[in-house]
Amino acid sequence: MANNPIRFGILGCADIARKVSRAIILAPNSTLYAIGSRSIEKAKRYAAENGFPDSVKLYGSYEAVLDDTCVDAVYVPLPTSLHVQWAVLAAEKKKHVLLEKPTALNVSDLDLILEACESNGVQFMDGTMWMHHPRTQKMREFLSDSARFGKLKSMHSTFTFAAGPEFLENDIRVKPDLDSLGALGDAGWYCIRSILWAADYELPKMVTAIRDPVLNKSGVILSAGSSLLWEDGKLATFHCSFLSNLAFDLSVHGTKGTLHLHDFVIPFEEKTASFSFASETGFKELVTGWDQLPSEHIVTTDLPQEALMVKEFARLVGSIKESGSKPDKKWPTISRKTQLVLDSVKASIDKGFEPINIAS
Amino acid sequence: MANNPIRFGILGCADIARKVSRAIILAPNSTLYAIGSRSIEKAKRYAAENGFPDSVKLYGSYEAVLDDTCVDAVYVPLPTSLHVQWAVLAAEKKKHVLLEKPTALNVSDLDLILEACESNGVQFMDGTMWMHHPRTQKMREFLSDSARFGKLKSMHSTFTFAAGPEFLENDIRVKPDLDSLGALGDAGWYCIRSILWAADYELPKMVTAIRDPVLNKSGVILSAGSSLLWEDGKLATFHCSFLSNLAFDLSVHGTKGTLHLHDFVIPFEEKTASFSFASETGFKELVTGWDQLPSEHIVTTDLPQEALMVKEFARLVGSIKESGSKPDKKWPTISRKTQLVLDSVKASIDKGFEPINIAS
Repeated sequence: MANNPIRFGILGCADIARKVSRAIILAPNSTLYAIGSRSIEKAKRYAAENGFPDSVKLYGSYEAVLDDTCVDAVYVPLPTSLHVQWAVLAAEKKKHVLLEKPTALNVSDLDLILEACESNGVQFMDGTMWMHHPRTQKMREFLSDSARFGKLKSMHSTFTFAAGPEFLENDIRVKPDLDSLGALGDAGWYCIRSILWAADYELPKMVTAIRDPVLNKSGVILSAGSSLLWEDGKLATFHCSFLSNLAFDLSVHGTKGTLHLHDFVIPFEEKTASFSFASETGFKELVTGWDQLPSEHIVTTDLPQEALMVKEFARLVGSIKESGSKPDKKWPTISRKTQLVLDSVKASIDKGFEPINIAS
Repeated sequence: MANNPIRFGILGCADIARKVSRAIILAPNSTLYAIGSRSIEKAKRYAAENGFPDSVKLYGSYEAVLDDTCVDAVYVPLPTSLHVQWAVLAAEKKKHVLLEKPTALNVSDLDLILEACESNGVQFMDGTMWMHHPRTQKMREFLSDSARFGKLKSMHSTFTFAAGPEFLENDIRVKPDLDSLGALGDAGWYCIRSILWAADYELPKMVTAIRDPVLNKSGVILSAGSSLLWEDGKLATFHCSFLSNLAFDLSVHGTKGTLHLHDFVIPFEEKTASFSFASETGFKELVTGWDQLPSEHIVTTDLPQEALMVKEFARLVGSIKESGSKPDKKWPTISRKTQLVLDSVKASIDKGFEPINIAS
């Protein structure tokens, strides 16, 4: 595989592409092959500023990247409103698609993308990096252990960051024509994903938005939240916002165990990450303290989570290229569930905080 | 003061009274003077089992404690449905009242208690111990520091514990005639208090219960939650349950700062407690990690929080006794706000999860 790396093209010079281009270079089975911008000057400047190898092809349009027959896969960090157009076109040009989140403005648009990927036999994956950190796998082991964790009962997830005045005025993520989902799409995506992840991707039966989200003057969400309820009675709440200091909280409560972390989206440090777990916790005599402290579990990684994401995506692409197998369904299925819940939260907000049923 | 300690009587042999009787003995300005049970045999057995000093008077009725003119103050850990009867009678007998939480079944009942205390010139305080831990004061300093914390935006609080089959069948807290508020009164009380505390006791304008709380066959709440919304847009959510492993989570999010702890009700250890605080947190270049880690703040205490509660209560009682001053209003006001929000959550549940407005 290392001798035959997956060749990535990047569509657009988004800020996040700086991190992912580094990841493409770091991953052992991928190579940064091309980048396209709406102007060749911008592509050149971006390549220079980010120290791209001279071998990276620079194009003055997105189409040119898609028309390069050497490009195996594209990474698409464009504004959400452009996803359906460019991801579908990429699939039609037989490029595998690594798509930034939120994947689309709504699940109907995402379905167009997923159908295009499926009918063209290309792999789809969204850019939710933390899914690929080995900590995530380690936490899954704890949650899956019924002896230690028991049955899942409740979850709470928070993703906030304090956007500055420049962001709140001009960023793509507060513009109704570019990323009309605002904080719900940008930050809420991760909250919803973390909750679905903890629920082992079982969809809730009902979603009810928390009252009075904060909107900007164009109606784009700056702060919002929701409750989610499952058939078996388990529940979750989340809060996402552009208006509070940085926080990535996830709490997962089971009948026998509790899991906590405060950096689930981007670990505090790149090479080590931890979480806290407690099982069958009780009290000392007279309830003067806990009979045992939650234990801290540290997971190390040589590659950062975004490089592990690229590596996993490239592995799937490679196996399609080599064996002609069909694309893996796991990642598009998870993306679609996340988008479906996100749509339901938006619908609940739009309908005056009525509960929205989700068909399972 | 140490030469003239406040003499406590305890009404009933509740389990929690074991911890509070120890606190009364530990506090430097109080003494355990009497305990009354519905039978003298039970009082004797309880005193022996808990190693009470021989000096403690044992009574075979609650009335006898209230009729003992040497008793300055009573601690009332009776089932919630009995609070109004015994707390009012205690006040009428000029006993200062330290009342277990939830203070009453509803705010109307609590008002009867508070009016009786006020008209009889006796101090009222509820038994929310963590309010008196020095950590609570230290956290307040962080939240009050606008340079580090900014403006309060959101809060989330969780109190759960895994009740065993015996508890779920027979405990006072699952019986409709004894503690009909169930987990909302027992655990939700703390969640609501922690949220009001973080909001510096500003009442929310609206409370909306999270859908589908778990009730037992008698209709007593085993698991519930709510969102709370303030006039200025800040919000909170909480979850309380008898059905999940032990958790006492509190997260407080401001425009500039974030505070976290996971043992707010009962600290992990008796003599030291900590919390985590982050301020103006950002990322490293390329968003590969946090530019600074949240800092851990450790607070030590010689006396456990329940003894500090007794000490503060006894101090207020002492100052009324010595100077004839009026009772302090801070604690009854906080109790009433907590009960008012609790009532509103219950009302929202009873009204099909409609939002309940709270008059300010």
